[in-house]
Amino acid sequence: MAPFLGSQLSRSLRSFQVYGANTDVGKTIFSTILCNAFRNQRKNEKVWYLKPVSTGALQDADDRHVAKFAKGIETECLMQFKEPVSPHLVTAKPPSDETILRAICDRIQKYAKTSAGTFFLETAGGVHSPTLSGHSQADLYRPLRLPVLLIADSRLGGISSSISAFESLNMRGYDVEGVLLFKNDYYRNDVYLKEYFAKHGSKTGIFPPPPSKNHEDSTADQEAMSSYYATQSSSNEVLDMLHHLESRHTERIMKLEKMSEEAHKYIWYPFMQHQDLSPNSITVIDSAHGDFFQTYSSGKGDSLLAPMFDGSASWWTQGLGHGNTTLTLSAAYASGRYGHVMFAGTIHEPALSLAKLLLSSLQNPRLTRVFYSDNGSTGCEVAVKMALKASRVRYGWNDREEAGIIGLKGSYHGDTLGVMDCSEPCDYNKEVDWYKGRGWWFDFPKVMMREGRWVVEVPEDLKEALGGSVEFGSLAEIFDLEKRKGEEAGKRYEKYIYNTLERLIKKEGRRFGAVMMEPVVLGAGGMLFADPLFQSILVSVTRSNPSLFSPTDIPPITPSSELTWTGLPIIFDEVFTGLYRLGRLTPSSFLQTHPDISVHAKLLTGGLLPLSTTLASDSIFEAFLGEEKKDALMHGHSYTAHAVGCSVAETSVKSLIELDNAGGWEEAKKNWSVKGEEIVVWSSWSQTFITQISNLPNVEGVWALGSVLAIHLKTSRAGYSSTAANTFLENLRDNAGRDWKVHARALGSVAYVMTSQTSTRETVAHMEAVVLGAL
Amino acid sequence: MAPFLGSQLSRSLRSFQVYGANTDVGKTIFSTILCNAFRNQRKNEKVWYLKPVSTGALQDADDRHVAKFAKGIETECLMQFKEPVSPHLVTAKPPSDETILRAICDRIQKYAKTSAGTFFLETAGGVHSPTLSGHSQADLYRPLRLPVLLIADSRLGGISSSISAFESLNMRGYDVEGVLLFKNDYYRNDVYLKEYFAKHGSKTGIFPPPPSKNHEDSTADQEAMSSYYATQSSSNEVLDMLHHLESRHTERIMKLEKMSEEAHKYIWYPFMQHQDLSPNSITVIDSAHGDFFQTYSSGKGDSLLAPMFDGSASWWTQGLGHGNTTLTLSAAYASGRYGHVMFAGTIHEPALSLAKLLLSSLQNPRLTRVFYSDNGSTGCEVAVKMALKASRVRYGWNDREEAGIIGLKGSYHGDTLGVMDCSEPCDYNKEVDWYKGRGWWFDFPKVMMREGRWVVEVPEDLKEALGGSVEFGSLAEIFDLEKRKGEEAGKRYEKYIYNTLERLIKKEGRRFGAVMMEPVVLGAGGMLFADPLFQSILVSVTRSNPSLFSPTDIPPITPSSELTWTGLPIIFDEVFTGLYRLGRLTPSSFLQTHPDISVHAKLLTGGLLPLSTTLASDSIFEAFLGEEKKDALMHGHSYTAHAVGCSVAETSVKSLIELDNAGGWEEAKKNWSVKGEEIVVWSSWSQTFITQISNLPNVEGVWALGSVLAIHLKTSRAGYSSTAANTFLENLRDNAGRDWKVHARALGSVAYVMTSQTSTRETVAHMEAVVLGAL
Repeated sequence: MAPFLGSQLSRSLRSFQVYGANTDVGKTIFSTILCNAFRNQRKNEKVWYLKPVSTGALQDADDRHVAKFAKGIETECLMQFKEPVSPHLVTAKPPSDETILRAICDRIQKYAKTSAGTFFLETAGGVHSPTLSGHSQADLYRPLRLPVLLIADSRLGGISSSISAFESLNMRGYDVEGVLLFKNDYYRNDVYLKEYFAKHGSKTGIFPPPPSKNHEDSTADQEAMSSYYATQSSSNEVLDMLHHLESRHTERIMKLEKMSEEAHKYIWYPFMQHQDLSPNSITVIDSAHGDFFQTYSSGKGDSLLAPMFDGSASWWTQGLGHGNTTLTLSAAYASGRYGHVMFAGTIHEPALSLAKLLLSSLQNPRLTRVFYSDNGSTGCEVAVKMALKASRVRYGWNDREEAGIIGLKGSYHGDTLGVMDCSEPCDYNKEVDWYKGRGWWFDFPKVMMREGRWVVEVPEDLKEALGGSVEFGSLAEIFDLEKRKGEEAGKRYEKYIYNTLERLIKKEGRRFGAVMMEPVVLGAGGMLFADPLFQSILVSVTRSNPSLFSPTDIPPITPSSELTWTGLPIIFDEVFTGLYRLGRLTPSSFLQTHPDISVHAKLLTGGLLPLSTTLASDSIFEAFLGEEKKDALMHGHSYTAHAVGCSVAETSVKSLIELDNAGGWEEAKKNWSVKGEEIVVWSSWSQTFITQISNLPNVEGVWALGSVLAIHLKTSRAGYSSTAANTFLENLRDNAGRDWKVHARALGSVAYVMTSQTSTRETVAHMEAVVLGAL
Repeated sequence: MAPFLGSQLSRSLRSFQVYGANTDVGKTIFSTILCNAFRNQRKNEKVWYLKPVSTGALQDADDRHVAKFAKGIETECLMQFKEPVSPHLVTAKPPSDETILRAICDRIQKYAKTSAGTFFLETAGGVHSPTLSGHSQADLYRPLRLPVLLIADSRLGGISSSISAFESLNMRGYDVEGVLLFKNDYYRNDVYLKEYFAKHGSKTGIFPPPPSKNHEDSTADQEAMSSYYATQSSSNEVLDMLHHLESRHTERIMKLEKMSEEAHKYIWYPFMQHQDLSPNSITVIDSAHGDFFQTYSSGKGDSLLAPMFDGSASWWTQGLGHGNTTLTLSAAYASGRYGHVMFAGTIHEPALSLAKLLLSSLQNPRLTRVFYSDNGSTGCEVAVKMALKASRVRYGWNDREEAGIIGLKGSYHGDTLGVMDCSEPCDYNKEVDWYKGRGWWFDFPKVMMREGRWVVEVPEDLKEALGGSVEFGSLAEIFDLEKRKGEEAGKRYEKYIYNTLERLIKKEGRRFGAVMMEPVVLGAGGMLFADPLFQSILVSVTRSNPSLFSPTDIPPITPSSELTWTGLPIIFDEVFTGLYRLGRLTPSSFLQTHPDISVHAKLLTGGLLPLSTTLASDSIFEAFLGEEKKDALMHGHSYTAHAVGCSVAETSVKSLIELDNAGGWEEAKKNWSVKGEEIVVWSSWSQTFITQISNLPNVEGVWALGSVLAIHLKTSRAGYSSTAANTFLENLRDNAGRDWKVHARALGSVAYVMTSQTSTRETVAHMEAVVLGAL
């Protein structure tokens, strides 16, 4: 039932995948030699050979050849087609790639249980020859990530095709453990390739070519072939290769066994209390593909790897699946074309294209400039530098008195000290030296589903000012800001925000330089779903009351354009919430407003590597123009706008937009449609599922938006909180008896699970069952 | 004379490089078709065809074939060898790759001057077929980065080899503009590949195969072939391709023409005053290779690209050359195997291997733990968080009084607000809101060569305390710390540092939590070469006087091991100076001391993408152990220890160490040897050269160490400084009449030029001439 098949590694079974640099390079012959060698040398073990799909005359079929010339081994072919063409041409109704993968996995698992031994999986044609369904073999088989034996091409041109094939395998994360090819004294590819592959960590075995066929006497042909195999299967060359492959297999396992202990010894983990950390609690990730990590699992059974759903979307970054070839190619191209080229006063295509793409697609008419930095935290530092100076210049603050940030309680903008100061004291920052919260943080009404009903909950001490909690018929109604603004809540919010700001500034004499928010959802602060109306009104009150912020004796400045910031610059930290994480390209659209500065990171690069952009309006930018260099924005990392990151980001953002335009999430959206009405909000998690969750006795409330599911667990007493979440996470992780484990994270008593933007409905449905099971 | 050949692009000449997915796929036939098509369709233009190296019977030579069947075009073959084997086998004394590249460049430049037209460069065999010298063609021709026509393989297995060949070209930064192949109704590769390449941005042209040969009647063969060419050269398919190639050529140029203007409009540059910035002053980088950018040059002449030496080593990051295939493969492998996998509580091989490699190779017995972050600035933030808390825990500071940093004047540790606070007020930070220097910064003696003599210069107001400036016989003598410690300077330094600290702490009641320094050279602060003795003694005074730093009523703690920090934690910011930038793996060895915390970035990833490590000792780590999570180190970016960065870093560091072990810098080192003695210091810039510079009238002083050359220019009055440096930089940039331009940077009146760690002696020698010319 599991829609996912994991990478295969077992202690007793050595598995190898035989890929060819081209067709007709001798894959079957080398498979036969190796089968014989392992059978002869390891008499207590078994040898298996599998050709999933074979095309061409039956009597020439590869598995028959192996069976004939390597006695005593088990051979199999899953599908045999007569036409000697590329597999994707032979049938109109091919079985799915998954069916084939599943069949292979079943066999590997069965073999591993049967006996110690060696398994060879021979592919068809070259590394990228299409499968029955038309995908590349190198992509199809990638989830298994079996160690590869590459059969190189000894013919003219074979150096090139062998190296290219190696590169194609390498960029998909395969380990090419051995290279085998025929000796050809004329072309001498073997000499060249042996040296090349040694440099790239692969051992090359060179074998004499098989006897040429003489069709007039096929008995003699067979005898010549048998004699060839007899010689080759016990040659020093094959024994060297056999020992090499055995020791690579052993070394790989030994390495995996040691990794958690070594990590425990040498790594200083982010945001982790090492006192609680044992080697056992460290997850060893051997590889990852799609939504899944492949983790080392020393537990029961022979299988050493287990799939684990990446339920934090790798700390909220993952959007297009692990091991995504499109992103790899994009990164590799930029690396090959540029490397990193310094960015102060230069321009390169990936940086310019990405800037234009973001400016045009976000459709915020205020934003006109793109500043690059390395991650969400530095992107927010840049935003703060921008906003504070713009305010200082506008309001003529020439003293060194500090202007603070207006934000929301539970906000979090990153780990560098500057942006730590933008949040109120909390567990993340209060023990950090030099931390000093600089600002004022509003508590605010929150959205959640409780017992099947969507509620906007008002914190206890704001009830007098904002009124009580309100139930809504659907989540979409909560986002009907136009309507709600005119209602009581809107009026109360506006009054409360205005009065608070007036008190702080005019009565208490405080100074503020920016409004800074994570729109809709405050992530690290505990997956708090803010009432969008409150956030929207905070922006509008700020913008329409510039006199609140300017010193009393200076008349408010009239903005030269409606795109000029007024009141205070509005910063939206969209690092977590942006780029479809919440189902829309930008969460600003939920608030029906446009920030003056917006920060993007995480999904920006689809989940591959760090990059951040801080977008700003002209009226912010102009505050930094001046006669002197020191008037400029003093920020810039050496890898600013690194070409690899910009290229990957452009590819990612385009892919996400294309997914959206192509209706990639229609099925999920339909689930959230309210009959006849436009779909305002949606999630990859179904409404039925979250309604179920919300009715569970141990659940306080729940919400889902885009790919995020947040479960607020009940906590009977202070301190118990973490236990509640931890039990749930442990259940998810171990997930006994199911097909996969789940890696998820909690923030206090809030557990969240995130899919990528490409997770299939099938996977999410399975995850829903897993989550319900764990609760 | 120039050892470098640049990428070629001219307005009037369209150049294309014809690569084959394999040998014998029809490169010459397609070249002939295209030559004919361009000649027929563009009658006022010329067509050129070049086959640099050809092997096989003369009468079958590709250029002869083209000449025979495409009349009226100019064909040429540079080298013809009779043996039909891979070019690297045909001659024992091959011409260098450079000779061949040079010959091609000469022709392209000559053709471009002759007439408007189209140029085809046909390669031999497949993309990776070896050149005469044995390198891959795809690598050899990469500096030219001509737009590629890939001839795909229409035979069985050809889908695979065509896609792999494309991937090999793609990861080297080639643009594959067109794909051509023969129709084969049986294998139908064309259908599959056309769709595949459309997705990857390349247009596919599909042509009927040529008539089969009938050797008994070669006249009929020739006629059949002529007729084939006549049909194909005017077919719709070829005309479509021709128009496509023409428009891609035009679009590429139009894009380049617009880039600086668009960048000026949309990009917010790091550390740049936009008021001074015109589109003209923005350098458009089309690609980069080795030490050079290929920049758009709209100036005189038809050539639109000009090589520009990357003289800031791309903001000090570049170490292994742009477009480095080894780094690309390393990045691509990690991307394919993992993507990014979340790091809190997990481990993957690249992160663990890099951690172990750094801990073992830096040979600092204190350092036991590796913390990952995204860049030098965040790495230093982490270091500061580590050190301040360690001091607070050790000394029991329970109040919230701030502990500052002890550093040197002119230090700079990054652009995030937290580490900006670690430097004294300067141009970089004093206009930044929230900036507040937190600490005390020693002025210090500096090293420089003046008029041919190495001097340790003492600042005016320290002369009383430290004595006057001192001349040395060689730079090595300045690094003889053992000897100098016992001499007057050592004693004076020690006394001065102790007295100052005592005054600050005991008399003025200040509190300090860390010593933080860039060892040997303070980079961003103005390329200040610190007297290593002073830095070394600052460390030893701090360590041997713990009572200075602890509150008077708490007895100093006896360290449990000699590796435990005492006094204050010592942070070395090796972001710029580490990993061979100054000629040694770690600059700590120059100071003959070991920090408790060290930060690496920039060269860590060889100049490809951002990553930083903060290494710490057990005694720092232990300060963060506790019952509660909030006692842990509160830092961690979402892309912490991203696999791509860790993999690239491991490859880079290993490459650098291998270069060192293999004597990669022996020639440069010899130049710095003092007869009979061990080489203590060396630079890729020769001693003779810097002596010459130091004697120039407009030079205040100069130094070179490792790959860094810093020229302190004379400034007659305040404010004039920047003009002096700017004139020099403009001279370098324009470098009229020479083979390449130079991109370099200045810090105030200090201009610096940096090579990568792989720049050849020939390149550096040429740069020396350029620098002298510009001064």
